[in-house]
Amino acid sequence: MAGTTSQPTQPTARTRSWWGWGWADAHPDDAECTAMGALLPGTLSRPLPVPRVRDLAVAAPAVEPPRSLAHLIDADPGDRAAHSMGKAYRDVVRALRGRPGRIPDLVARPTDDQGVADLLDWAGERQVAVVPYGGGSSVTGGVEYRGDAHRAVMSLDLTAMGRVLEVDTEGRAARIQAGTLGPSLEDQLRTHGLTLRHFPQSFEFSTLGGWLATRAGGHYATGRTHIDDFVQSLCVVTPAGISNSWRLPASGAGPSPDRLFLGSEGALGVITEAWVRLQECPRHKASAAVAFTDFRSALRAVRALAQSDLSPANCRLLDSGEAALSGAAHDGSSVLVLGFESADEPVTARLERAVALARSHGGRYDGSGGDGGVGGSKGSPEASPDGDAAVSAWRSAFLRMPYLRDGLARMGAVAETFETAATWDRIPDLIDEVRREVGEAAVKATGFPATVNCRLTHVYPDGAAPYFTVLAAGRAGDEVAVWDDLKAVASEVLNRHRATITHHHAVGRDHRPGYDRQRPEPFALALRAAKGALDPRGILNPGVLVD
Amino acid sequence: MAGTTSQPTQPTARTRSWWGWGWADAHPDDAECTAMGALLPGTLSRPLPVPRVRDLAVAAPAVEPPRSLAHLIDADPGDRAAHSMGKAYRDVVRALRGRPGRIPDLVARPTDDQGVADLLDWAGERQVAVVPYGGGSSVTGGVEYRGDAHRAVMSLDLTAMGRVLEVDTEGRAARIQAGTLGPSLEDQLRTHGLTLRHFPQSFEFSTLGGWLATRAGGHYATGRTHIDDFVQSLCVVTPAGISNSWRLPASGAGPSPDRLFLGSEGALGVITEAWVRLQECPRHKASAAVAFTDFRSALRAVRALAQSDLSPANCRLLDSGEAALSGAAHDGSSVLVLGFESADEPVTARLERAVALARSHGGRYDGSGGDGGVGGSKGSPEASPDGDAAVSAWRSAFLRMPYLRDGLARMGAVAETFETAATWDRIPDLIDEVRREVGEAAVKATGFPATVNCRLTHVYPDGAAPYFTVLAAGRAGDEVAVWDDLKAVASEVLNRHRATITHHHAVGRDHRPGYDRQRPEPFALALRAAKGALDPRGILNPGVLVD
Repeated sequence: MAGTTSQPTQPTARTRSWWGWGWADAHPDDAECTAMGALLPGTLSRPLPVPRVRDLAVAAPAVEPPRSLAHLIDADPGDRAAHSMGKAYRDVVRALRGRPGRIPDLVARPTDDQGVADLLDWAGERQVAVVPYGGGSSVTGGVEYRGDAHRAVMSLDLTAMGRVLEVDTEGRAARIQAGTLGPSLEDQLRTHGLTLRHFPQSFEFSTLGGWLATRAGGHYATGRTHIDDFVQSLCVVTPAGISNSWRLPASGAGPSPDRLFLGSEGALGVITEAWVRLQECPRHKASAAVAFTDFRSALRAVRALAQSDLSPANCRLLDSGEAALSGAAHDGSSVLVLGFESADEPVTARLERAVALARSHGGRYDGSGGDGGVGGSKGSPEASPDGDAAVSAWRSAFLRMPYLRDGLARMGAVAETFETAATWDRIPDLIDEVRREVGEAAVKATGFPATVNCRLTHVYPDGAAPYFTVLAAGRAGDEVAVWDDLKAVASEVLNRHRATITHHHAVGRDHRPGYDRQRPEPFALALRAAKGALDPRGILNPGVLVD
Repeated sequence: MAGTTSQPTQPTARTRSWWGWGWADAHPDDAECTAMGALLPGTLSRPLPVPRVRDLAVAAPAVEPPRSLAHLIDADPGDRAAHSMGKAYRDVVRALRGRPGRIPDLVARPTDDQGVADLLDWAGERQVAVVPYGGGSSVTGGVEYRGDAHRAVMSLDLTAMGRVLEVDTEGRAARIQAGTLGPSLEDQLRTHGLTLRHFPQSFEFSTLGGWLATRAGGHYATGRTHIDDFVQSLCVVTPAGISNSWRLPASGAGPSPDRLFLGSEGALGVITEAWVRLQECPRHKASAAVAFTDFRSALRAVRALAQSDLSPANCRLLDSGEAALSGAAHDGSSVLVLGFESADEPVTARLERAVALARSHGGRYDGSGGDGGVGGSKGSPEASPDGDAAVSAWRSAFLRMPYLRDGLARMGAVAETFETAATWDRIPDLIDEVRREVGEAAVKATGFPATVNCRLTHVYPDGAAPYFTVLAAGRAGDEVAVWDDLKAVASEVLNRHRATITHHHAVGRDHRPGYDRQRPEPFALALRAAKGALDPRGILNPGVLVD
């Protein structure tokens, strides 16, 4: 779409979808959508048409930018529409139904800190809400304006700040601008033989700044995986001044300044730059998939792995539904996808120990247990680095999933995911109850049975992060309301188990009710006071985190 | 001393020193003090007498506690004097010279959250400053009151809250009261086969709450070692209410509430309880010491180790002075103390790889290099779990050091430590400049040469934490001023290299100037606002972190 990306440092020949996930040319076509819909009872017989920007009624901007900032600002209606929402299922449906979120009056693309500061100054004077925008991949309503307390809305797109500015190869760290998209970030680091290895599912369409502002969860299934742990220092432009923390490997000097801004979702300031910790690219890799007949046994195996010293890079447990959906197993087995990697030493022995541990909890690795695609690579795990059939199937499905979700949305289906984290004592019941209660709610809301699958994306010695996929019929024209109902049921289960409203998708606006229940009230007082001090005019991403 | 410890859950037959480190009976006697002093030119010929509480003029309390709280409060002069300061060198000297810090009017020992809340309510109404107090081992002026803006001062001693309340063996975590001292904490966990493995030098004389409030650095030389990383949730009593965070393995829901209180040093609330992550007790251990002729080569070896996948539990590099002082080497070598441990698998192979890596950077392990005590255990490292002579020498010295410091203080010497952390690019010059500039300042201040040693206590892929020991002559009656001068010189070097004012000793009152320079101003605004919201009457540990 015209005008959506003017990123001199991050050029691409492909066009982003304004209404759905990722690349416009990667979406399933009408035939594929129809075929998918046919698998899900209660959906439409033909896909909804792909929405066109020119069909939207886009009002003229309510404010005029000052001449001094005009070079940073775009008022193109298509560009503005593309910045009106993130990429949650509910956003996609709203676009399909011609009812997107509030379209921002302006899109600003600053190129340096001073530009950000000038834009904030102007917005503060004019009571213009500022919604920081990275790759726009929020799935929790993090990048749209709701309400009417401001004179106008400006989307602050950081992607013109997309460079790796400095690399410290000795200390394995780099200073990187916040608007750098995942692929560009890794491309720029590759010449130095280094990598951040932060690969959320949104990797292609999200930025370092977005990861930092939302405490994104990354590549590693165990150990340090949240982007938080890779931060040496932050530069944050706030209406009250620019915050530059010192670049440190560790410190005990008061509460961490960085940890206040990590997860602040644009409500306290605009993260413009960070020094982040890097790694050498892994030279040794090995992976395997282990099948389990019994999901609870698989949970015990995963807990044992998480509590061992093995530190698998990948340790994702797919329940039987998720395994079937991704093609990792078709016999009702759950599948544990294991992967090890190191820049330093061979990982065969660790994989073998991990497989043995999984077997001791009832896992099947050798493919002889009648589990179809599972354990397709015979013999030593090292023989098939990255190559196990079930592992590959799962990986391809992982990257394609958001596109398929949008295809299902075009068939009038409800198709969405959500995630959480809880201590091990809560995990088995929590998963069962989400499956049961969301499934029952779907039948009640739509009259058709739903699919509720679960995988563990990240595991810790003390708990795990379950990730749920819901596929259900919709109610024509009312799909968002159906989803909101199902999500409310799910959130009740999470709250009952004191499981977090989000492990790595952020709070945004969609998770505010759950977040407000979870957050200790004295901390809310402190956060509100901090916001009042840094954003006294209340222009920064209003409605996110605190009011 | 009478009255200093009324800890029903943590009984001990030994008596704490009111004026110096640790146990009263562990201090060097006059003869040992004299012998130590003789090694350091410019010190006294006889030790200063051990100070007696009864020689202090302790005024009557300026406030009377209400009857409803009287059972929690002690006004015994000895108890109050013992709560007047922490255990920094400057505190010890002030006690020796009969000029301790402001003696609190009352010592309160609540037994539950309600007691803490009631005490805070009363203190707020009466404008009584509240100084939270765990084991009292602060070395940065964290537990004393300075100034006169309050009507009275209450030391809030948490050690009557010293129990492990709940253990989750499946998820390896425990709910523990903040006043639990290190040894009692480990004793209570041991019955469950679990351990926190947080062993700061102050372990015997510090509490979980103190560790949390000061972001203490712990046992592990690499990886996760700050207590921060072991926290699942916190209970914090603030004047604005009780903050209970949810017990979670990880979360991405907004800025971490726990991270605001971790390092808040009693200025935002009183931490009363935490769920912390535990581990199984290690069953496999191995250690070795590697000698280096050249300190910069040793630094490179340590960096390579920190950037490998080896994760040594111990990876402490002693420079030649430190190695000599601790008896680890007497030939001018620097010594790298390496240790591995695991509950899970043998660690021999890892130690062997680590030793090989150290050798590739010029390290000597086999003892054949003429380095005396170094590498005393021949053959396989696994043959001597914990047993290497240099390792043992260093460990004994480590625990005895604070007592020796107090003995030197009695000889009129300046004897103190400080620590920092910085990225690898800064480390070599930073260490050189601290040695040189503090050494020169000591000569200027006292007329005698000083010893300035360095060790790395914790190392990270991106940097390290150097820890300095300064031994110098004093100026009779003016020792504190001499130390303050030397510390100011050291702090200038740290500031020049943007090295943190503290890696794990906390800010307290002594580090405020350095902290104020280091902390980004917008974060200071946010912190002040948070303090205003949680402690509107400004009674909590006044002078710490923010004003």
